[in-house]
Amino acid sequence: MTTDAKILFALRANPEGVSGAQLAEQLAISRAAIWSRIEELRQAGYEIEAGPHFGYRLVSSPDALHADDLLARLGKTKVIGRDIRVFEETTSTNDVIEKLARDGVKEGVVVFAESQTKGRGRLGRKWTSPTHKGLWFSILLRPELSPQETTQLTVASATALRRAIKNVAGISAEIKWPNDLLIGEKKVVGILTEMSAEVDRVRHVILGIGVDVNQDAAEFPPELRKIATSLKVEAGKEICRAELATEILRELDFDYARICGGKFAQVADEWETGCLTIGKNVSVQMGARQIRGCAEALDDDGALLVRTEHGHLERVIGGDVTLEK
Amino acid sequence: MTTDAKILFALRANPEGVSGAQLAEQLAISRAAIWSRIEELRQAGYEIEAGPHFGYRLVSSPDALHADDLLARLGKTKVIGRDIRVFEETTSTNDVIEKLARDGVKEGVVVFAESQTKGRGRLGRKWTSPTHKGLWFSILLRPELSPQETTQLTVASATALRRAIKNVAGISAEIKWPNDLLIGEKKVVGILTEMSAEVDRVRHVILGIGVDVNQDAAEFPPELRKIATSLKVEAGKEICRAELATEILRELDFDYARICGGKFAQVADEWETGCLTIGKNVSVQMGARQIRGCAEALDDDGALLVRTEHGHLERVIGGDVTLEK
Repeated sequence: MTTDAKILFALRANPEGVSGAQLAEQLAISRAAIWSRIEELRQAGYEIEAGPHFGYRLVSSPDALHADDLLARLGKTKVIGRDIRVFEETTSTNDVIEKLARDGVKEGVVVFAESQTKGRGRLGRKWTSPTHKGLWFSILLRPELSPQETTQLTVASATALRRAIKNVAGISAEIKWPNDLLIGEKKVVGILTEMSAEVDRVRHVILGIGVDVNQDAAEFPPELRKIATSLKVEAGKEICRAELATEILRELDFDYARICGGKFAQVADEWETGCLTIGKNVSVQMGARQIRGCAEALDDDGALLVRTEHGHLERVIGGDVTLEK
Repeated sequence: MTTDAKILFALRANPEGVSGAQLAEQLAISRAAIWSRIEELRQAGYEIEAGPHFGYRLVSSPDALHADDLLARLGKTKVIGRDIRVFEETTSTNDVIEKLARDGVKEGVVVFAESQTKGRGRLGRKWTSPTHKGLWFSILLRPELSPQETTQLTVASATALRRAIKNVAGISAEIKWPNDLLIGEKKVVGILTEMSAEVDRVRHVILGIGVDVNQDAAEFPPELRKIATSLKVEAGKEICRAELATEILRELDFDYARICGGKFAQVADEWETGCLTIGKNVSVQMGARQIRGCAEALDDDGALLVRTEHGHLERVIGGDVTLEK
């Protein structure tokens, strides 16, 4: 953790206040240095009171993502979020992670952007990322999986995001296979899993995640209003993005450890209970080919098993899945 | 084709000679311009005679790869080799193609290097690429395949390389699944298939190919002498690298068209006849897991089907395959 992250961590751990002397001792730096860091944090929008009786006290945090603050809020994780970087604007956080991956950066690094000029979804589709309204971020992973097993990571991301949204916003989102979270049939989360691989071995995976958090309904482009929503619209209140972000990383770290530990079956079970696709009749468009049938379960790799009208079990690893009414 | 490529093409088409006037007319440039290009080609090592009776005549070509010459020798292909680039030295031709892929360059571009400082094989292994002694090159493809179908491309590369080596060097190499060509149990070709993909869709594939062509036996590092050989050692004569290179590209173009046209079954049939793995007892090391059994066939995706001792059919997409004696 950086010094700023440690200071914010200490302020949050002591809501009634912590003295400059204590901070200085904990961080093994001078009181003058503490004072100067506090000034910097105030400049960044953190409201920090100072008084002779309570020392320093955190009154409020800005609605901006701040790497040190995210690290302080997150605390200790196994892999995901041990290195967090925040950009005010970038083309796509997946592009930034791609560069870091090539430079050999360790797995678990997370890149957030307050806005993306070229955010993208699956199949090269555009993803709208309005400034400061959502969470647009990507994570670098280097799992020991084959290319076909990477679907496991999309499935794990969906379960982790569902738990995090429940914990922070109190809302139950539903999973639409393979990569969307919906609330009342409207999309609120998209997940894009990209990989660089040999035929039998993944070199790295980039999880790109977009969460619509604090948009008002009217802020969505007209063509999206019927099919997209935000947590604020659904919960009827603003959601603290930094709190949600760190909760998501914590839950992802937990599920990633389950997958690396060979416990994908546990993740899949949880996924099936939160999934609106399972047990429904679906049609799947895979390129020129269409499959119709009942979505029965996930297989060991995270592929969707669809029982066709002819009783045949088809293994679906992608394509567009539509629920039949 | 560039002007130099067109001149070399015309010289090769007319081994008895072609006049400056004819060349100038064919290429729609001045005779002075032709003369100046001929001078440049001579500088590059092409021995070109000039005389009042026969005009210009190509006597010999240098043992160096030259993009224009390769284009001229190759002639027209559907996809592969319509854009050829030659580097004197690079880290790895796969790295160069990776950059071109990200810049949006069209599929089919081929990058050769006379030497690689960081040539690599499967599973991160080192590949030795001595200057001017072999063919070290990579090809960018953008096929409409799922990640698990990319094994088809490795299989197609092996069949194409086998035909090209037979045509140019007169030697029958054997295929060892998934990515090696052997002559008398010694490796002569390695193929590395890398991809960038979403879970269900390949964005691009990079075929990296290394062919040991003109090394003498003593030129191999001691640790490789028992397991590697060159076409020169096996054929007992120098092989023209430019001729072999263009024959390989031509055959690859043919097999790539078969795969894109849904005719992988044809490629697989041909592959099986040239493969020393099929019908043999093998052991396959996949990470910590080992499978033993008889390699029976390829499946539709190019995976190896191994019948285990327990009669179970296992689908092998990678790992290290060893023939059991």
